[in-house]
Amino acid sequence: MKILVIHGPNLNFLGKREPEIYGNTNLDDLNSFILSNAKDINSDIDVTFFQSNSEGEIVSEIQNAFENYDGIIINPAAYTHTSVAIRDAVLSTGIPVVEVHISNIYKREDFRQKSYVSGVSVGVISGFGKDSYILGLRGLISYLENK
Amino acid sequence: MKILVIHGPNLNFLGKREPEIYGNTNLDDLNSFILSNAKDINSDIDVTFFQSNSEGEIVSEIQNAFENYDGIIINPAAYTHTSVAIRDAVLSTGIPVVEVHISNIYKREDFRQKSYVSGVSVGVISGFGKDSYILGLRGLISYLENK
Amino acid sequence: MKILVIHGPNLNFLGKREPEIYGNTNLDDLNSFILSNAKDINSDIDVTFFQSNSEGEIVSEIQNAFENYDGIIINPAAYTHTSVAIRDAVLSTGIPVVEVHISNIYKREDFRQKSYVSGVSVGVISGFGKDSYILGLRGLISYLENK
Amino acid sequence: MKILVIHGPNLNFLGKREPEIYGNTNLDDLNSFILSNAKDINSDIDVTFFQSNSEGEIVSEIQNAFENYDGIIINPAAYTHTSVAIRDAVLSTGIPVVEVHISNIYKREDFRQKSYVSGVSVGVISGFGKDSYILGLRGLISYLENK
Amino acid sequence: MKILVIHGPNLNFLGKREPEIYGNTNLDDLNSFILSNAKDINSDIDVTFFQSNSEGEIVSEIQNAFENYDGIIINPAAYTHTSVAIRDAVLSTGIPVVEVHISNIYKREDFRQKSYVSGVSVGVISGFGKDSYILGLRGLISYLENK
Amino acid sequence: MKILVIHGPNLNFLGKREPEIYGNTNLDDLNSFILSNAKDINSDIDVTFFQSNSEGEIVSEIQNAFENYDGIIINPAAYTHTSVAIRDAVLSTGIPVVEVHISNIYKREDFRQKSYVSGVSVGVISGFGKDSYILGLRGLISYLENK
Amino acid sequence: MKILVIHGPNLNFLGKREPEIYGNTNLDDLNSFILSNAKDINSDIDVTFFQSNSEGEIVSEIQNAFENYDGIIINPAAYTHTSVAIRDAVLSTGIPVVEVHISNIYKREDFRQKSYVSGVSVGVISGFGKDSYILGLRGLISYLENK
Amino acid sequence: MKILVIHGPNLNFLGKREPEIYGNTNLDDLNSFILSNAKDINSDIDVTFFQSNSEGEIVSEIQNAFENYDGIIINPAAYTHTSVAIRDAVLSTGIPVVEVHISNIYKREDFRQKSYVSGVSVGVISGFGKDSYILGLRGLISYLENK
Amino acid sequence: MKILVIHGPNLNFLGKREPEIYGNTNLDDLNSFILSNAKDINSDIDVTFFQSNSEGEIVSEIQNAFENYDGIIINPAAYTHTSVAIRDAVLSTGIPVVEVHISNIYKREDFRQKSYVSGVSVGVISGFGKDSYILGLRGLISYLENK
Amino acid sequence: MKILVIHGPNLNFLGKREPEIYGNTNLDDLNSFILSNAKDINSDIDVTFFQSNSEGEIVSEIQNAFENYDGIIINPAAYTHTSVAIRDAVLSTGIPVVEVHISNIYKREDFRQKSYVSGVSVGVISGFGKDSYILGLRGLISYLENK
Amino acid sequence: MKILVIHGPNLNFLGKREPEIYGNTNLDDLNSFILSNAKDINSDIDVTFFQSNSEGEIVSEIQNAFENYDGIIINPAAYTHTSVAIRDAVLSTGIPVVEVHISNIYKREDFRQKSYVSGVSVGVISGFGKDSYILGLRGLISYLENK
Amino acid sequence: MKILVIHGPNLNFLGKREPEIYGNTNLDDLNSFILSNAKDINSDIDVTFFQSNSEGEIVSEIQNAFENYDGIIINPAAYTHTSVAIRDAVLSTGIPVVEVHISNIYKREDFRQKSYVSGVSVGVISGFGKDSYILGLRGLISYLENK
Repeated sequence: MKILVIHGPNLNFLGKREPEIYGNTNLDDLNSFILSNAKDINSDIDVTFFQSNSEGEIVSEIQNAFENYDGIIINPAAYTHTSVAIRDAVLSTGIPVVEVHISNIYKREDFRQKSYVSGVSVGVISGFGKDSYILGLRGLISYLENK
Repeated sequence: MKILVIHGPNLNFLGKREPEIYGNTNLDDLNSFILSNAKDINSDIDVTFFQSNSEGEIVSEIQNAFENYDGIIINPAAYTHTSVAIRDAVLSTGIPVVEVHISNIYKREDFRQKSYVSGVSVGVISGFGKDSYILGLRGLISYLENK
Repeated sequence: MKILVIHGPNLNFLGKREPEIYGNTNLDDLNSFILSNAKDINSDIDVTFFQSNSEGEIVSEIQNAFENYDGIIINPAAYTHTSVAIRDAVLSTGIPVVEVHISNIYKREDFRQKSYVSGVSVGVISGFGKDSYILGLRGLISYLENK
Repeated sequence: MKILVIHGPNLNFLGKREPEIYGNTNLDDLNSFILSNAKDINSDIDVTFFQSNSEGEIVSEIQNAFENYDGIIINPAAYTHTSVAIRDAVLSTGIPVVEVHISNIYKREDFRQKSYVSGVSVGVISGFGKDSYILGLRGLISYLENK
Repeated sequence: MKILVIHGPNLNFLGKREPEIYGNTNLDDLNSFILSNAKDINSDIDVTFFQSNSEGEIVSEIQNAFENYDGIIINPAAYTHTSVAIRDAVLSTGIPVVEVHISNIYKREDFRQKSYVSGVSVGVISGFGKDSYILGLRGLISYLENK
Repeated sequence: MKILVIHGPNLNFLGKREPEIYGNTNLDDLNSFILSNAKDINSDIDVTFFQSNSEGEIVSEIQNAFENYDGIIINPAAYTHTSVAIRDAVLSTGIPVVEVHISNIYKREDFRQKSYVSGVSVGVISGFGKDSYILGLRGLISYLENK
Repeated sequence: MKILVIHGPNLNFLGKREPEIYGNTNLDDLNSFILSNAKDINSDIDVTFFQSNSEGEIVSEIQNAFENYDGIIINPAAYTHTSVAIRDAVLSTGIPVVEVHISNIYKREDFRQKSYVSGVSVGVISGFGKDSYILGLRGLISYLENK
Repeated sequence: MKILVIHGPNLNFLGKREPEIYGNTNLDDLNSFILSNAKDINSDIDVTFFQSNSEGEIVSEIQNAFENYDGIIINPAAYTHTSVAIRDAVLSTGIPVVEVHISNIYKREDFRQKSYVSGVSVGVISGFGKDSYILGLRGLISYLENK
Repeated sequence: MKILVIHGPNLNFLGKREPEIYGNTNLDDLNSFILSNAKDINSDIDVTFFQSNSEGEIVSEIQNAFENYDGIIINPAAYTHTSVAIRDAVLSTGIPVVEVHISNIYKREDFRQKSYVSGVSVGVISGFGKDSYILGLRGLISYLENK
Repeated sequence: MKILVIHGPNLNFLGKREPEIYGNTNLDDLNSFILSNAKDINSDIDVTFFQSNSEGEIVSEIQNAFENYDGIIINPAAYTHTSVAIRDAVLSTGIPVVEVHISNIYKREDFRQKSYVSGVSVGVISGFGKDSYILGLRGLISYLENK
Repeated sequence: MKILVIHGPNLNFLGKREPEIYGNTNLDDLNSFILSNAKDINSDIDVTFFQSNSEGEIVSEIQNAFENYDGIIINPAAYTHTSVAIRDAVLSTGIPVVEVHISNIYKREDFRQKSYVSGVSVGVISGFGKDSYILGLRGLISYLENK
Repeated sequence: MKILVIHGPNLNFLGKREPEIYGNTNLDDLNSFILSNAKDINSDIDVTFFQSNSEGEIVSEIQNAFENYDGIIINPAAYTHTSVAIRDAVLSTGIPVVEVHISNIYKREDFRQKSYVSGVSVGVISGFGKDSYILGLRGLISYLENK
């Protein structure tokens, strides 16, 4: 089982500032954390990471995942609220996607309450810090096993 | 660690009809599934279940949980979208709450996109079928351990 | 053919005040009127009545109707405009429901123009005083006979 | 007692296509059905039919009904949602009007949820197929007898 | 002169948490405070208290007040913003009602700015802590004396 | 100077009902009143009248006025609020148009506050009963003389 | 018959700039024009003028008109769209008021389409340049004579 | 292959005024232009023209096309934005329809951005002057050939 | 304890007309009534009155109250709904303010439901006639004593 | 005559999935189809193709077209609904642009009804499958020839 | 070069309270600061100051500036968001105006995001404390020199 | 003091077209102008320039500025209105940012009135042509010196 984890814009900056909202783990730590948890869940799972600040590159990466990955964990960050292109990439590849958010987006500004991605995702997880990724991974694996 | 699981209106009817949306597990099966998973996660976790079709009874049960439970998993079902009273119960007791939904509510009617509970929850999980509860349980336990 | 008639909140107060809007029949008179009309329509029809001021009890009663009644006449009264839970109960039981209103709700306040129940009903009848129930009964019986 | 039945735009096309929404009765069948039911209800009722695709002709026919008919059954079809002129015709003649719809308009597009006619009608009936007319007729007759 | 004081959902939890918003008086203290003030205002006033977390029970209690009480002081709490049923209960009993709020609801979330009850109340008092009830009592008594 | 006066839908019914809103003058009386006033203003003015309940006929009549009339007084009645076609007819002929209303439309329902015609008219007059036409005539004549 | 003409903010600047919108008559010219026309209409009419840039002074002047004038012609200019106080002054004095505008406000910005004054006026006249005042005067005189 | 071309309201006035928006071709020229182009595309295509200012007549003409034409090119003009009846005529006949506009409606007023017809059309073409019809014809023919 | 009572626009006209909404007390009577009640509450309270129809003067008076008064009772009347300047004056002086209304503003037009002042007030009292001022005074005194 | 064809995000994935919406032609096939049709229309036309998933690259390509191409055919895909930057690129280069869509966007989600590009395009073509490009090409060529 | 600086409502209170938002400079200090900076920029600039809490007085002062000043720096404060009259004064005098705000209004309440003045200003400066005035002065001088 | 100037999409095209809105300076001229002015303000200021049409590259550049620059002048151009990612980059780096616009965006389309960046900026400057950058630079320097 091959899983692609996509981190959206500004997540490469994780842990550098605003720890009160996002924790003080940086992106490498986060990826290690995800990897070690993935191994605990199922030692046969293969996890790959991708981060980009560019909407277009994320679209392309989702396309690249087609026939190469079984599922995607995506934290679209700011593009959650503005990107129809990412929504369309998910729609056009048909790969199962789980949307995750580190912070609880429902506690933040109004414009962060709308997600273009949620409506084409298997499911959505928001607010559990770095655990959101692990929960998303478990949810995705379980979804793929039961499909 | 004591956890209360609250099922909102119509969840007592689970598995009787509409399996294409909610699966064909009934509420007792679901509770057993949650219980056995909880034991797997941590054998010291104590899980109690509550279901009601009444907004007022759910409010009262959240109040009853005060000083008796460490956290709540709630699937507010229809009351997600209409109940300020449940939001206020969460606010006034201050108990950590995780909101879960069996179906992905972002794929359904517009009026199901708004949640009065999300803004006062630790986090939200939507769309993973009965696994939503297990993911919520894991998220809540992790939250409580790190508090 | 077994029909359940559900009267929503404040309908137990019918005839006590505001006769200019709702007529001066009280709830017992109304039920007798429905019963005698039902017998005229078809002597084999069995009509049962239920009234509650509680949203949760109405939800439960709709669930109880599952496999016990062929159809429901509901006047959701104030819950027409605020209850997703009643909508979900209708959806989850799948029992044919006809929505009736004594007054013409389209002549009243803006917030009474929206119904959560209409979209899951067979049909809607509004504005014919106590006759709304009889018309609803006729419509429901005809619907059930032609199904 | 003289009753005018007005069929709005496209109802002359009834039964030619889209039977899944409107049934496969054509307009003549529908009128015969209404007529025979009217006779069953009360043999002294005189029913006349009018259909037009033109908003202006419907306005004129409502005016013509003044002092010639005791009441009107109208299915304004598409004009339900766009015609202030029909509303004003009802207002200016003061003839009791019952609004009927074959399909349940509350299950269709958003723009079909608004009716300019409902607020000036005695009552509204929606969703009972061709029976909507019969229920409307019964409701109107009862209204006229009790006035 | 007989007055009924109705406390809405979560007010039974008063004083247990969030003292910065609601003060640290619990519900019994509040009722004693109201009672002693009522006696100071007019020793012939009879005050009765009712609290419920259930919308339906509050509706029923307002109905029970009909012909038994001269007026009602109600703090509808969360139901202020969501309950058409309570509005209808006030409308259908015709008992003079004064709406009170402990906190100034105009300083809180947007959804707390709308009240279904204000439009059917004699008057509204918001923001004076437990004094809101005493001011409401004085306003109601004065209203009843001048009627 | 040739002026066309266009009366919109239901104005042919003027004076038959609802005198409290529209006065009890009928359409012939109104036209005579306009004519005699026009002669008083300027004996060389030629006034022609047109009434239709049909949006399309009003559009055609505005087109017919092109190169035949110097200006138009129009009371679009219900079509004021719904007809883009009449707006386009005014736009495409370029004839100076004055919009008049017998009642003050700003005192009526919300949907009567919007006019598609006002934005393409020389000016608008509302609320002066039958005098609205005379004021409109004076305004139009003065406009044409000063052009 | 005594008439007060109130000119709102910036009308004292009339004719100094923007002639393409408001013409090049200054306020004194306008008042002379109104006066001479008033004499033509009816030599017994007494017209007084008032201009202010201050909302409060306009409110006070409307109050001063109470029992001193038979009617008011008001061009509220910018306050048309923002002043509830002027609306309330009209309401509280009960003096018949006609609202006039030099330009056709329906051709301008969206925020100029809403008037707080129209709903409490006898009638509204917009778009006839300085003639708007004369038409308003005629409409008001006719209204007062027929009252 | 038989094609019906329907021109909506005011298109009979084409070329008489406003050439800067619509060009200076009149309707006969336009029809000749369409006809000669149609022959160039495919000499076996039979094109018929219809114009009306009346919404109802356009509805009837669409119905008449049923079983008589293979497809319709419609420029609904002003009715684009206001006619549910034309939408319903297209829906009920099921004839393939292509919507065309001479001007680019997306450059004009807000109310011209909404089309009731687009959602039931094969496709939409806007902004190419008289070429919009030819492009529509090509699109429709291609659609019919590939069906 | 020094209290300033500010009456907004048109309150100087109180009692002259519209007694069915505002009672027939004039402003002097109202002030005497407030004064005598203030003395009854606490003989050491010093109450001063101010009325203006001008938004700017009310702003200035609130500023003048800074360091001269302990609190303000304000009935902003029409400015309640339109004045950000009064809101800012309250914010910038920091004097405790209680907002009062004679009529129940929640029973009136939609635009009267919004208050710019409520969000910066201690509390709000609406609907008790002249008693609203006395209740406001009591609420303010109690607030100041407990600060 | 040199034409640039720009394909927006996800169009490089054309034909890989979702053939029911977009057909099963892939992007190379589509480009060949466009090219061969272009040659048929006019053998002197030079067509170049560009595809990108990146909003910024599309902006840059439009700029590159300045003084190098006579016109652009753009299918902005998802960026249609979200990109002000592409609109500004069209505005700032002033190159004639035709907007095309493979599917009829008016039959899809609400957020797909709004286009930032339409208002700065020569014209828009939507719903004709791969023919949309050919129709757009014809429309653009005709526009350029007539400029 | 003569510049008028207009300070809107409550700016006379500057520095007395809320220093965290507006700094602790009072209005005289601010004016001295502006004056000394103006001299530094260009010793020939003549700066005059005006402050008022009255919308009408600000309107009049803008009119007075006509032909007496070359440009205006205005901080409309609360009237930014509510005054069409100030907008119209700017429009009718045609004097170049620069709008300045001490705080960044885009970080404050929603109703402070809308400015009636920005659309008729040369430019807008917000958020630089007392420096906003100096930047505005520089911007205005540069604008006037380049006109 | 090190300052980064970021030019958003299409600003590399400055001066090539639309000089009536943006002036005819090209981007190199603009940068030289900024540089020479910066030196005049303070010879120790180091200014670096960056332009990109890509949202992602602008996000990355803001991140690169972290710990390398003291402040940023940004003209986000089209991304002002659509980019949450740029807002988040500003938020996550915490670098002081001043938002500038060459044209007065408040005089343009509605969708240009909303800025995602303003709420996280020190301040905003709009409408002064190329001087907007110089004013922004002065405002930023002053802000940094006073921090």
